[in-house]
Amino acid sequence: MRLKHVKGASEKIEQSDMVIKDYIKYRGQFYEVFEKKQPLHIEIGMGKGDFILGMARKYPEINFIGIEKYDSVLVRALDKLVEPLPNLKFIRMDATMIDEVFDHEVDVIYLNFSDPWPKKKHAHRRLSSPVFLKRYDELFQDTKRIVMKTDNRKLFEYSLISMNEYGYHFDEVSLDLYQDNVEENVQTEYEKKFHGLGFPIYKISVYK
Amino acid sequence: MRLKHVKGASEKIEQSDMVIKDYIKYRGQFYEVFEKKQPLHIEIGMGKGDFILGMARKYPEINFIGIEKYDSVLVRALDKLVEPLPNLKFIRMDATMIDEVFDHEVDVIYLNFSDPWPKKKHAHRRLSSPVFLKRYDELFQDTKRIVMKTDNRKLFEYSLISMNEYGYHFDEVSLDLYQDNVEENVQTEYEKKFHGLGFPIYKISVYK
Repeated sequence: MRLKHVKGASEKIEQSDMVIKDYIKYRGQFYEVFEKKQPLHIEIGMGKGDFILGMARKYPEINFIGIEKYDSVLVRALDKLVEPLPNLKFIRMDATMIDEVFDHEVDVIYLNFSDPWPKKKHAHRRLSSPVFLKRYDELFQDTKRIVMKTDNRKLFEYSLISMNEYGYHFDEVSLDLYQDNVEENVQTEYEKKFHGLGFPIYKISVYK
Repeated sequence: MRLKHVKGASEKIEQSDMVIKDYIKYRGQFYEVFEKKQPLHIEIGMGKGDFILGMARKYPEINFIGIEKYDSVLVRALDKLVEPLPNLKFIRMDATMIDEVFDHEVDVIYLNFSDPWPKKKHAHRRLSSPVFLKRYDELFQDTKRIVMKTDNRKLFEYSLISMNEYGYHFDEVSLDLYQDNVEENVQTEYEKKFHGLGFPIYKISVYK
């Protein structure tokens, strides 16, 4: 994602009670930051937040945490919040540390339009690489479930191979999401844009 | 495939020494029908034969058997043969009997543009269904290897799920073959047509 500096972003994040600042202390008990103890779904690389906001509105019986690396992006999600959402929180952090933050308490991980890192030498940075899949193992409390969407063909091909090799079962695979039933689908910003441009959107849902 | 009756097809097949008629007797020793004892690759549902003919010409160090259910289709492949190809034979038979014909002697199975059998109740007829994958187990002599191409999105999605579930490793996945390196690719008749119409060609190569 191209980054624009957003003036006052870090101050805004510092002041928002939607953003969990001392996240290390909640390790293993993130339910404490929510009103209700209920399943926890997280999105890694939430961007400007359209997806996780839509999900939190649609599924009040699930707690959501959106994770984003950059202040200037996360602040866009804060700006979009017009109503209180007691089942949604954000964390500003780098995904490589994810297994130091959550401890066997996550039910679903969403990876939406992640950075494809096209160069082979950067493959380990892809969020569906074996390096990350191994990190995720420590996050899940019971059944491991990952739902991924992307418009990037090469990343999707790589992810199919990687998730298959890691022993995940494939629940659902779509190579053109908008040709299928998308009634239940919650869009991301990227998705709107790339689907609008006529590109197929790929989706996979896996578990083990 | 839409079938046209071809006059004299069964007579032509009966007379051709390219077609193995008494195939049951070669079970476990199909190398006997070839000049050389070398790896055996088979194509199930070879249609009019462009792919298997191309492969046999390109790889003289491999023996090929093309399998086709219909006389009127198989005869088209015979008509295309202009030179002797000592590493190519055909069998006219139904794929459901495949495990009664070959016995731990096949190295690679090709499934090209197979019938998608779109109705759920016909799923077991798809050549990548668990029913067929189980049959194939008895064919392979060592490493099991299947290479599949199709333009049918639904069949490909189904095959990804089915092959993953059956424990195959994914060697290569392409969701748009002609965007990738296709130097090594040998086309089928269908492939020419559907690629020409601008449809993406899907390919997967699996092993276990």
